[in-house]
Amino acid sequence: MRIVNVAGRLGLLTDEGVVDVAEASNGLFSPDVQAVYERWPQFRAWAAAGTGGAPARPLDETLLDSPVPRPGQVFAIGLNYLDHAEEAGLETSPDSMVVFTKFPSSITGPVAEVELPPGSVDFEAELVVVMGAHAHRIDAAEAWDRVAGLTVGQDLSERETQLRPPTPQFSMGKSFPGFAPMGPALVSPDEFADPDDLAIGCTLNGTSMQQSRTKLMIFPVAEIIARLSAIVTLAPGDVIFTGTPAGIGFAREPKVLLGPDDELVTSIEGIGSIRTRFRAGS
Amino acid sequence: MRIVNVAGRLGLLTDEGVVDVAEASNGLFSPDVQAVYERWPQFRAWAAAGTGGAPARPLDETLLDSPVPRPGQVFAIGLNYLDHAEEAGLETSPDSMVVFTKFPSSITGPVAEVELPPGSVDFEAELVVVMGAHAHRIDAAEAWDRVAGLTVGQDLSERETQLRPPTPQFSMGKSFPGFAPMGPALVSPDEFADPDDLAIGCTLNGTSMQQSRTKLMIFPVAEIIARLSAIVTLAPGDVIFTGTPAGIGFAREPKVLLGPDDELVTSIEGIGSIRTRFRAGS
Repeated sequence: MRIVNVAGRLGLLTDEGVVDVAEASNGLFSPDVQAVYERWPQFRAWAAAGTGGAPARPLDETLLDSPVPRPGQVFAIGLNYLDHAEEAGLETSPDSMVVFTKFPSSITGPVAEVELPPGSVDFEAELVVVMGAHAHRIDAAEAWDRVAGLTVGQDLSERETQLRPPTPQFSMGKSFPGFAPMGPALVSPDEFADPDDLAIGCTLNGTSMQQSRTKLMIFPVAEIIARLSAIVTLAPGDVIFTGTPAGIGFAREPKVLLGPDDELVTSIEGIGSIRTRFRAGS
Repeated sequence: MRIVNVAGRLGLLTDEGVVDVAEASNGLFSPDVQAVYERWPQFRAWAAAGTGGAPARPLDETLLDSPVPRPGQVFAIGLNYLDHAEEAGLETSPDSMVVFTKFPSSITGPVAEVELPPGSVDFEAELVVVMGAHAHRIDAAEAWDRVAGLTVGQDLSERETQLRPPTPQFSMGKSFPGFAPMGPALVSPDEFADPDDLAIGCTLNGTSMQQSRTKLMIFPVAEIIARLSAIVTLAPGDVIFTGTPAGIGFAREPKVLLGPDDELVTSIEGIGSIRTRFRAGS
């Protein structure tokens, strides 16, 4: 199953196009995309039963917004691919999963223009997990059953704010407006042959910058959820950015920083691509 | 003006007791406490006009919940009192305001029992600011006008998670269930002679642990809001924990850690007190 946010309304992507869920369900489900995660099992059952003769419209990608527009909590995992930790010159530990947040006001859609703040803006292609159930103190073996689906994200990062001493400010450096683009669709785990092994990458103005596979995560999705749930209570519609592989701009020689008119395309196998354009700050 | 969350319903505290806002306004305002911040100017005007003959009930403190139950964003400022930064052995910089989050699933009310997770659980009395308007790139001079009010908070912290190398995990160590008690009321800034100079402190089992004044903040409330708004967009109902003064348990010799049956009372002048009890983990 694939769902999309079409100008603020929940849509189900079918072979024929986008079905408006509120219309097709006669109001059984709200058009509010964020609200569907609260009733994920019911929604999944409704969608699986087929939408009958409900009209499907062609997908207009320019109308797409984030498939999770207002999550209650956004978790982001740092240093979750060994090659990225190495290029960042940072130590990883199997005992210590690095967790920060991207503040939700940074969320934008899959076809977005982002204003560049002062500083050094960098890209980080990431698999994003969206919860479909509560989770507190669960085992990794139970974790995938609590996932609504996966989407493509960019963990855009202004490195000077992020790394400024004396205390690195990960959450602030990664939370400028538009710094959390997501989309184009939320894809349920059953759509993948192996949801733990997906090609992930991004291109900048057509040149490949990051290319990896999600199976190279130090903490795979189920382990991330189990470890988060050991401390916090995850809720439906919560979002997890799962970390980025090697190839970021800040670790290159010379550094590659995002500039005005740059176009960043971030892709994950089986989900699709998001396209982020940058403009000069005002 | 003082508002309270009485078992999930928005109440206005008057000299006669608690007025149920949804009832007294004939449904003009929702009983949902979080929703009132979206319409703060209208609500303030309605409350200022008086509730006429609306019935007031005695305040039952055992029914109180957080006056901000589901904020979209929770910001927390680290090392914001010089004496606390010194006791923590950490460097402060006028250029660098330390920002982390307490994940919203850690929020609880002003009379709460909190389960102790494994580790070293410590207290941090904090003034909490709740936004009543959007703020993006605003000056400090405009900041107080965007504040709905102030409340008392505890930034409970499990120090081993928080300080674990290689990367300190502030946000996780401070986000166990119940680690963000708030209340008892949200008090609007006009209720204070000087909202920037309030006595703040806490007692543990009746013994004073922290006693200070909010005027000793390195970054005062208006400056915090201006600096946050330089990066993120603050929204109505967003919460800011503004940092703690000296006296935390972890910096004492010997250390004072919270244990089963401990009672922590946290107070701020002009707002009131919250009472947090601790029980052994299961």
